[in-house]
Amino acid sequence: MSELRRDPVIGRWVIISTERGKRPSEFPREPNNNTGKACPFCPGNESLTPPEILAYSEPGRARDSRDWWLRVVPNKFPALKIEGALNRQGEGMYDKMHGLGAHEVIIETPEHNKEIQDLPDKHVEDIIWAYRDRIMDLKKDIRLEYALIFKNRGAAAGATLSHSHSQLIATPIVPKRVREEVNGAKDYYEYKERCVFCDIVKQELSLNQRIVTENDDFIAITPFASRFPFELWLLPKSHDSDFEDIQKHEASNLAVMMKEVLRKLDSVLDKPPYNYVLHNSPLKESHLPHYHWHIEVIPKLANVAGFEWGSGFYINPTPPEEAAKFLRESE
Amino acid sequence: MSELRRDPVIGRWVIISTERGKRPSEFPREPNNNTGKACPFCPGNESLTPPEILAYSEPGRARDSRDWWLRVVPNKFPALKIEGALNRQGEGMYDKMHGLGAHEVIIETPEHNKEIQDLPDKHVEDIIWAYRDRIMDLKKDIRLEYALIFKNRGAAAGATLSHSHSQLIATPIVPKRVREEVNGAKDYYEYKERCVFCDIVKQELSLNQRIVTENDDFIAITPFASRFPFELWLLPKSHDSDFEDIQKHEASNLAVMMKEVLRKLDSVLDKPPYNYVLHNSPLKESHLPHYHWHIEVIPKLANVAGFEWGSGFYINPTPPEEAAKFLRESE
Repeated sequence: MSELRRDPVIGRWVIISTERGKRPSEFPREPNNNTGKACPFCPGNESLTPPEILAYSEPGRARDSRDWWLRVVPNKFPALKIEGALNRQGEGMYDKMHGLGAHEVIIETPEHNKEIQDLPDKHVEDIIWAYRDRIMDLKKDIRLEYALIFKNRGAAAGATLSHSHSQLIATPIVPKRVREEVNGAKDYYEYKERCVFCDIVKQELSLNQRIVTENDDFIAITPFASRFPFELWLLPKSHDSDFEDIQKHEASNLAVMMKEVLRKLDSVLDKPPYNYVLHNSPLKESHLPHYHWHIEVIPKLANVAGFEWGSGFYINPTPPEEAAKFLRESE
Repeated sequence: MSELRRDPVIGRWVIISTERGKRPSEFPREPNNNTGKACPFCPGNESLTPPEILAYSEPGRARDSRDWWLRVVPNKFPALKIEGALNRQGEGMYDKMHGLGAHEVIIETPEHNKEIQDLPDKHVEDIIWAYRDRIMDLKKDIRLEYALIFKNRGAAAGATLSHSHSQLIATPIVPKRVREEVNGAKDYYEYKERCVFCDIVKQELSLNQRIVTENDDFIAITPFASRFPFELWLLPKSHDSDFEDIQKHEASNLAVMMKEVLRKLDSVLDKPPYNYVLHNSPLKESHLPHYHWHIEVIPKLANVAGFEWGSGFYINPTPPEEAAKFLRESE
């Protein structure tokens, strides 16, 4: 079983995935671009994944059979598992607990070579509904405190399989970075009596320097203090701390914007590896006046962001105003 | 001039390096392995760098001539510059200031293809003295709050030139990650009346599961809550918050340990890209009972650490106990 371990200085919990137990030779330098035949996410290969948790398909389909258009399965090499108790304990001065939680894979499409921007709008909307369905379901488990939804595209961004997919990791603690963001937003709210993200939306709309695109429900911006070149945030225009509250028209507009933004990134940066992360309120903290869910997209460009991991110190060689201009003017 | 910008939610300051102003096509996918001829860090090419700040050489050498064995120069494309005033100001809801600071390059050796572990012990000790000399000098500038020393090895770790070098960035703010570490250590001290790093040294020595190597003055461990596979910390055995206080025998033992640890990393992980970062106390906070300077080394392995940047959430597929064993048993 994997372990959650707490750094005694910073207080950051880390998942030590002992089941994976990667040996030095097991860090490949090259991406694993399986062909459709060997790909566990392709139709016909359903038996290569653990039994499915959820599938969007025509009615009457048998579980783990073909003919789905979206499928959610447990990660075959899970960082965390749903069985067991937390079992918090010390180890001398250190603190640890069992790696309880969930680790799921959202297989976004049956088509091996399609990416999000290649799919019909309705299909991308279904990916959003799948994110929501899984969060709603995991929320029922009172042992869980946070559900993190993210996507790695490209080996350099951490993807081990090229077939388009997202992941969900649910944890029995609120990750430190999430806590900082929620608390930072709360400090702002207490001082200003306004949501900091609502203020960002307003200011960006009125300045119109860092907006990449907007529609009725969302804006996509390159944030003022971007850590990375071409970093992008997708923010709902209406205040809501909980992604799960998303309205039908919002899901539809978010799908359109995600396609647009990912197409622009591919066009401007020549199909870069990227990560996106859904920033959502903790599972047990709903309807917060100070927090505002959003999506952060980070292209992983070579020769930047080396030592930043280790130092928390960021140098961004491309001003967000320039990045926004390139993205705005691209297809 | 570059700008320091503050994220309004998290409070993190970021350097937006407008002078570099990298356009989309300027993020190369491949490392720039200049030959010695074109390399600005090779002897004979001194005119390709800005005038030197410091050189270790035989007496009587003319400035910016050949025949040095270590040379410190300003970064040709500095993220921060020493000229000007801070000029803190608002931009609507946002906060920014001029990119005042220093950005230097420590050219560790005149030999293009030598790495730290290939150099004589005394030469590596000189690299350590150069770090100290530069920190001591920058400490005199009261506008500066922190001096960050780091090394990027390999393009995937952010190095743009292959000739062995370290960098120093001095900032007019204490980086958020540093502040968190110092404050975390302070909380521990207030609770326990002991330095958390001293406790780590003691516990690791008595457990002997995560020690990679030790000598009279230092231990190298894979930390209990390692974020990354084969992450390594080099800790002085004696308590001191300030790297600048390093004793001669310590500098000598640190040099030996750095060579050993970097050789082991190369051997176990087949010459991985890596970063190391000197974690030191802020320039204006000396002789802290709760802080303990150290060096963190992070190999950058493919297929890990993708979304961690965006989420602050770490999954480490190699338990530190296993990593320590591999490293301990290697040459």
